Amino acid sequence: MPDRNELALIDWIRQRAAFVSNLQVGIGDDCAVWQPSGSPLLFTTDVLMEGVDFRVDETTPQLIGRKAMAVNLSDIAAMAGRPLAALVGVALPKLRGFDFAKQLHEGMQSLADEFGVAIVGGDTNTWDGPLVISATLIGEATEQGPVRRSGAKPGDWLFVTGPLGGSILGHHLTFTPRVREAQELHRLVDLHAMIDLSDGLAADLHHLLDESGVGATLFEDAIPISKAAGGMTDNRNSLDHALNDGEDFELLFAVSASDGAKLLPTTGNATAMRIGEVESHPGCRIQMRDRIVREVKRGGWEHSF
Amino acid sequence: MPDRNELALIDWIRQRAAFVSNLQVGIGDDCAVWQPSGSPLLFTTDVLMEGVDFRVDETTPQLIGRKAMAVNLSDIAAMAGRPLAALVGVALPKLRGFDFAKQLHEGMQSLADEFGVAIVGGDTNTWDGPLVISATLIGEATEQGPVRRSGAKPGDWLFVTGPLGGSILGHHLTFTPRVREAQELHRLVDLHAMIDLSDGLAADLHHLLDESGVGATLFEDAIPISKAAGGMTDNRNSLDHALNDGEDFELLFAVSASDGAKLLPTTGNATAMRIGEVESHPGCRIQMRDRIVREVKRGGWEHSF
Repeated sequence: MPDRNELALIDWIRQRAAFVSNLQVGIGDDCAVWQPSGSPLLFTTDVLMEGVDFRVDETTPQLIGRKAMAVNLSDIAAMAGRPLAALVGVALPKLRGFDFAKQLHEGMQSLADEFGVAIVGGDTNTWDGPLVISATLIGEATEQGPVRRSGAKPGDWLFVTGPLGGSILGHHLTFTPRVREAQELHRLVDLHAMIDLSDGLAADLHHLLDESGVGATLFEDAIPISKAAGGMTDNRNSLDHALNDGEDFELLFAVSASDGAKLLPTTGNATAMRIGEVESHPGCRIQMRDRIVREVKRGGWEHSF
Repeated sequence: MPDRNELALIDWIRQRAAFVSNLQVGIGDDCAVWQPSGSPLLFTTDVLMEGVDFRVDETTPQLIGRKAMAVNLSDIAAMAGRPLAALVGVALPKLRGFDFAKQLHEGMQSLADEFGVAIVGGDTNTWDGPLVISATLIGEATEQGPVRRSGAKPGDWLFVTGPLGGSILGHHLTFTPRVREAQELHRLVDLHAMIDLSDGLAADLHHLLDESGVGATLFEDAIPISKAAGGMTDNRNSLDHALNDGEDFELLFAVSASDGAKLLPTTGNATAMRIGEVESHPGCRIQMRDRIVREVKRGGWEHSF
């Protein structure tokens, strides 16, 4: 049962919601009503949890709200889709107050506006627990169709859209999801398979290879390493960070060698860097500068219940 | 970044996902891909929080999962829609373990199966915080169109689909969302306005009246009071419980007097009880058995940040 402040917040959100032509009913009824265009729809959801995905005392509520929208936009980008509408569920700590909640929403709304996304519904609650934000995004496939993880073929070239590693130093809160780049690439070339890098290059590449039933070899000297990865002060080298750090939110994709050659000189506004090749031999390897080939493990930290 | 147990759980969920014909891509890619039929789509989302919407030590994980699906189905019912697909985000307390998470999912899946809903995506996480479940449901309007809150007219009769009050004694975990009843009613009569009773009759009736720009009078002797409302042992009478308790998840709707008369003798499998009348005079009143007319306040508990 919403309390007075929750109702005031919902009213405030409702007044700020953008008008979009195919939205028949927005915030304020039991459901939003949306007229689809006929294209296949894309659905994705992500939950952000205080202390896991962000720390309230190390950032601003705007950036937390922005991230909740951005990680979902990144999933739409990974299918080369067009984002349309969002629903946002929030469990707000009572102690943070009304202004905090508004700033959180402003962060979401600003990124939604930038990508033409209408916030069409939500569920706003207060409690004594930590902040949790759950956003669901609805998008549609473009004329070229959705790009799956499963279409990589032996001989394909592997690309990423930007430098990797060290995202925890700030990029994970400020990245721009590669929605526009994905659509542009999908018009230029036939994207065989694509995934967004949320778990880290090694882990996400394994996901893509598993779904495609193939393997790959990366080239050490081709992996783009971010400045942040170089600036990490732990005892792991920057290649390790580029391979295993999560939340880069760049795209990893596979295209035929001939399409890959088209991307090398120019990719319009999108950056695409070739990092390796798809092979029929299962597993993932990396060819080091000294020509030695090493196994690339799935990576990522693992813990147990 | 998902850990080993999260990945095992996602695999387990993926294997149990029902096949539905218009789902092109289900769990296991960046987004689900769904081919819409062309009907207007309905979107709704609800967040359930441990200690607010349920208590883990007073119920089973199956019933918690079931409730997460049921409250969303109830929103689809409130538009007289047809539920299609769900996405589920979960923040699981690590200490609850793998079996708890499976049982939670089983509760969701069983109700989803009962209503022909495909669980097409989600985000499964573990943390040290309390249990949070966020579900988003996608449905479609039937041929009769979506029923809004805003169409009630002076002279309409107000109905509810079942007895009210005392839901906290168990009904809030075990109720069957009125999806089938809503569709049946919508075929029988022209539903002018409808809402599901989540905040309590008084509060939700005020929502419906506000959106429709009208008022109403209820009849005390017509309000159906649940056995549970009579069994509450606090110092509030059972009418107070029926008016102000939340989470009945019955439907409240308005139809013309002539349509209302059709519903009185029989409503097929659906129960519809006339509780009052819509009037042009704003606000909400109740005519007591002794003919005295009292104001019905918005009700519900209110607290502050």
